[in-house]
Amino acid sequence: MTHKRRRQPKADKKDLIIRRLSVYLRTLDHLKGKGVEVVSSSDLEKIEGVTQSLVRRDLANFGTFGVRGVGYPVPALREQIARILGCDRLWNVVLIGAGGFGSVLLHSESFQGRNLQIVQIFDNDPQRIGKSLEGIPVHDMAQLDRELDARRVDIAIIAVPPPEVQRIVNQLGQMGIRGALYFASRPVTAPENMVVLNVDITIELGVLTHHLS
Amino acid sequence: MTHKRRRQPKADKKDLIIRRLSVYLRTLDHLKGKGVEVVSSSDLEKIEGVTQSLVRRDLANFGTFGVRGVGYPVPALREQIARILGCDRLWNVVLIGAGGFGSVLLHSESFQGRNLQIVQIFDNDPQRIGKSLEGIPVHDMAQLDRELDARRVDIAIIAVPPPEVQRIVNQLGQMGIRGALYFASRPVTAPENMVVLNVDITIELGVLTHHLS
Repeated sequence: MTHKRRRQPKADKKDLIIRRLSVYLRTLDHLKGKGVEVVSSSDLEKIEGVTQSLVRRDLANFGTFGVRGVGYPVPALREQIARILGCDRLWNVVLIGAGGFGSVLLHSESFQGRNLQIVQIFDNDPQRIGKSLEGIPVHDMAQLDRELDARRVDIAIIAVPPPEVQRIVNQLGQMGIRGALYFASRPVTAPENMVVLNVDITIELGVLTHHLS
Repeated sequence: MTHKRRRQPKADKKDLIIRRLSVYLRTLDHLKGKGVEVVSSSDLEKIEGVTQSLVRRDLANFGTFGVRGVGYPVPALREQIARILGCDRLWNVVLIGAGGFGSVLLHSESFQGRNLQIVQIFDNDPQRIGKSLEGIPVHDMAQLDRELDARRVDIAIIAVPPPEVQRIVNQLGQMGIRGALYFASRPVTAPENMVVLNVDITIELGVLTHHLS
């Protein structure tokens, strides 16, 4: 218990920093796309709503970047942050659930900038099984443990109805998949060997209504 | 600058607590649905992957809850957290963009438990304009400043293509809308009088790949 008690705030703090770095990376991609070559921490402040000192401290956690009074060179800073976030290598993703939200994701550009590529899709709709979506083969969800290429896949994106998420997470854990992201608005217990993150709009809506109250 | 420097970590910390409370609320709804009447902080720990002491500290920030050694009564704890998060009152929501992600949201159950109701929809698809979706009238996006019922609407959910988000946020700010949530993977500057939150899957994917690296 004391062990956990000491560790938790640090893990939380580190996750906050990592999340902000991920936000900075998005901004740098945006600036790079506009042809901007040097960015100051005050530029990042304006765009992301954090403070200059926070940007500097976040970056300083991972070594020295930039030149005082000049700023950070955009391509080099992008590269260094991408390395910290692991986005400098290619990640193979399995999409589990290709309807609704899964379908939106499949057609979004979210994955490209982060070096993620969907290599397999699983779904339970007979209309989709055996075909391909965006050039990616769609397998039968019922055959997940047989047809998932666990040696090739790094990450699972789980877009299935809430009651099915826990079972699929357990199944993926047993198959050795190390990371998953799911969208259902419900708690899920992660297997020991697995990092399971959740994007839940209701959580953010709670933060929003708190701020407006 | 020093003012901001002092304030930032506190605001960050408070947002973290609020986000966790929003997660606890989700868990309590889940437990309530199962007929569970009393929950201990160690139960919350098992479900949400936080520590007992953190749950207790988060709750203690807002007064005294529960009975030591017995636990927290689920309905009362739910009610108190809902009040902190502002979910004890009804919020009127405008959905801007009813295709793709907007369409998924429209058919999800995310809003109900949080006392949010969509009262207007705006879209630019002629096939949708003038009709209704799930019983909610769809207006022409081009008529936003004329047809948005700004006195009635509290929150905007913005599900439009990334390049359009900033313009819409600015427009909503001018109309006096106080809060918005958007899904595009790009930075947006919030008008002075407005709280603008973002749900961006690429941010979470960056956190996930960092953990797996």
